[in-house]
Amino acid sequence: MADFASPTAETELLTIMGGGLVGSLLALYLAQHGHAVEMFERRPDIRKAGPVEARSINLALSDRGWRALEGVGIADSVRDVAIAMHGRMMHDPHGQLTYQPYGQEGQAIYSVSRAGLNRRMLDLVEQNPRIRVAFNQQCQRVDLRQQIVEMLDTERGESRTVPFRRLFGVDGAYSAVRGAMQRTERFNYSQHYLDYGYKELTIAAASGGEWALEKHALHIWPRGQYMMIALPNLDGSFNCTLFFPFEGPVSFEALQTPAHVRAFFEDVFPDAVPLMPELETEFFENPTSSLVTVRCYPWTYHDAVLLLGDAAHAIVPFYGQGMNAGFEDCTALHELLTRHGRDWNVIFREFQQQRKPNADAMADLAVYNFEEMRDRVADPRFLLQKKIESKISTQYPDKWLPLYSQVTFSHLPYAEALANGQAQEQIMQCLMPHIQTEEDYQRPEVQQLVAAEMAARA
Amino acid sequence: MADFASPTAETELLTIMGGGLVGSLLALYLAQHGHAVEMFERRPDIRKAGPVEARSINLALSDRGWRALEGVGIADSVRDVAIAMHGRMMHDPHGQLTYQPYGQEGQAIYSVSRAGLNRRMLDLVEQNPRIRVAFNQQCQRVDLRQQIVEMLDTERGESRTVPFRRLFGVDGAYSAVRGAMQRTERFNYSQHYLDYGYKELTIAAASGGEWALEKHALHIWPRGQYMMIALPNLDGSFNCTLFFPFEGPVSFEALQTPAHVRAFFEDVFPDAVPLMPELETEFFENPTSSLVTVRCYPWTYHDAVLLLGDAAHAIVPFYGQGMNAGFEDCTALHELLTRHGRDWNVIFREFQQQRKPNADAMADLAVYNFEEMRDRVADPRFLLQKKIESKISTQYPDKWLPLYSQVTFSHLPYAEALANGQAQEQIMQCLMPHIQTEEDYQRPEVQQLVAAEMAARA
Repeated sequence: MADFASPTAETELLTIMGGGLVGSLLALYLAQHGHAVEMFERRPDIRKAGPVEARSINLALSDRGWRALEGVGIADSVRDVAIAMHGRMMHDPHGQLTYQPYGQEGQAIYSVSRAGLNRRMLDLVEQNPRIRVAFNQQCQRVDLRQQIVEMLDTERGESRTVPFRRLFGVDGAYSAVRGAMQRTERFNYSQHYLDYGYKELTIAAASGGEWALEKHALHIWPRGQYMMIALPNLDGSFNCTLFFPFEGPVSFEALQTPAHVRAFFEDVFPDAVPLMPELETEFFENPTSSLVTVRCYPWTYHDAVLLLGDAAHAIVPFYGQGMNAGFEDCTALHELLTRHGRDWNVIFREFQQQRKPNADAMADLAVYNFEEMRDRVADPRFLLQKKIESKISTQYPDKWLPLYSQVTFSHLPYAEALANGQAQEQIMQCLMPHIQTEEDYQRPEVQQLVAAEMAARA
Repeated sequence: MADFASPTAETELLTIMGGGLVGSLLALYLAQHGHAVEMFERRPDIRKAGPVEARSINLALSDRGWRALEGVGIADSVRDVAIAMHGRMMHDPHGQLTYQPYGQEGQAIYSVSRAGLNRRMLDLVEQNPRIRVAFNQQCQRVDLRQQIVEMLDTERGESRTVPFRRLFGVDGAYSAVRGAMQRTERFNYSQHYLDYGYKELTIAAASGGEWALEKHALHIWPRGQYMMIALPNLDGSFNCTLFFPFEGPVSFEALQTPAHVRAFFEDVFPDAVPLMPELETEFFENPTSSLVTVRCYPWTYHDAVLLLGDAAHAIVPFYGQGMNAGFEDCTALHELLTRHGRDWNVIFREFQQQRKPNADAMADLAVYNFEEMRDRVADPRFLLQKKIESKISTQYPDKWLPLYSQVTFSHLPYAEALANGQAQEQIMQCLMPHIQTEEDYQRPEVQQLVAAEMAARA
């Protein structure tokens, strides 16, 4: 085995900018292929951080993420600390509940703590003799031509210049590596913000560390132009996120006092407020964060630089696919490394050609799902349509996989999922005028229509 | 009249970053409203530059541009050095010509020299006692909060800090002012490049300073995936632009030697080559430039900063509207200044709300027109459709103004022009299957169809 200090002719020293979830996973995959890896992370080592810095938000891990974790042998240990969410639980303004399963029996997405997952992956990274990781390393400058990065050690206040032969930019939505590429000729780039922000809040554990709401569901309070969601934690609490307009009559800007906040929440989230003892404090102490979609292209600079994860394709969180898409990048790169060995030119080129349309599709799906979650899931007609789709899927399992399942429970390329979903929606537009109740699905003319559409999809 | 040094309470010292065409025009308008203006330009004074630096490209001035020039009283003097182009002259691969008028009798777009226009405007700027202009001023940094800009005098090599109360960013597609705004919270931004570049070439004057091609036309050599165009100069020459793929089998990358270039041009532009004595030299000495569309929003930073022109909305040149759109920004701002006086908050807000949808529409139209120019104008069916549209317009002048005329010969907001054009295209999709020749327009069923559509547009 090549050790870190002396990569052989067969291996290479690879540089990773960013030691978050995707960066850590990427390091493990590259090491698995025999490469020596140095990884720079801007923040302090999260494993040594106090409870405030390590304050965890939750992520929804689904099939694409699991596959990527399996590839480096850590899926089982992560599964031990993940909570299955089998469906959406909608809370209406009177506290009435409606449940919608995400998929078939046994399928689920999994609530995991971002900080916990990151810690576990850093342990693995540090145990790997091929990987060297440095924390508190702020990237000050990337010189693409000279192939050097200027790193500031924020603990020691010292800068140094680090040469690289191959640089992997996994430094997130505000990537410094991408920033350097943006100044090259003909780099396509866009950053688009929603007019909504989000704020993390908490539903406390019930007495005895029990869960005050159904544990195995993702909870949604859909309110048309805004919504709150909650994901379960291991300690019985739920991590809530309020997605809310920045400005306007009902907005962060409009809620200026603790009394305001309480009155508003009691009005629109009456069943949640009693479970949120720290509501006012959290509302004014926790930051209001923005929601950005970043698209860019190319993701490569010759055979020297490759962007992955949020640095290449930051998306809004409404499909729970941000981390999963980044992890799938690692799976895709792993497959290309297996196929093409050290032919980095081919690997980088095929990676971006393969992943870019999928990243674009996922970005569109994520924005689309916000509307669905905050608005349509509260509409009985929409829920009826979802039930009918589920029936079609049961009757024609080879021809109809619901869009949500394609994205969440399959490894179908996102771009194909989006195209399939659009075709399905067109069929439902034709079908739904004939359907008033679940039972109508069995009516002969409906069955005939469905059969005709399915035959056309042969 | 308030002189430059002492703006009164009624006036203000306004700062303009960028002394190009739009910056100069803006300075004249702001001075007209009684303000003192300081204008910084990165380049040397073009009026003192040698022939190489002042090498001129041509612009197509149309109605929106003329109106803006009229507002500061310089339209007449510009008209003296402008050449009317009444239509497109298409050159097929055998040198055969087809002519398509742009509008009605007497309507034209005008070929003007960018450098000549810029010189004329700088003369006016410098004569205006309210305006102070400084050249060789490179903007190093814009601090939006502190309201200062750091300017480097590139001649003297000295930097200084300049405070501003109101800053107008008209510093072009790669705007430094916009760069600072891009780092603020929730700034939407995109830069998108075509896979095409362009190169300026020259058709020489014929003997005696005559024009070797029809003088009063814009010449196009449409070749499907690429094209060349030519605009007349006062000295008998034509300024040509080749729009050509960067990469691929037929591309800048593929043409590597002078012999290659000549053989290719003789093959595809046979009637132009004999008129281009400097072809090979120019091809390898002139730069290959890229084609970018820039969109962003907001265009304001509180009531302190406003973006206009290419800095707010850089577009590709295929509709000849880049400069005209920037000039129309000045007209729009002038109207708001007239209406709202010194209420900058309102002026800035209304400006961006009014102009942003129009800028977006114009950006789409410009990309669309590239396809039309390089490809569709060589299609007899397309040219027939244009003739039929012209007949409809003649028959129903109140209900049908061709899209090109809406954009070029009217002051209709670009967004409305785009919407109208899309509606017209839908009508033509229904009509054209019934039409094989120009005469078919008179057939009763065609006349009936047209009458029905026009009635629907009542």
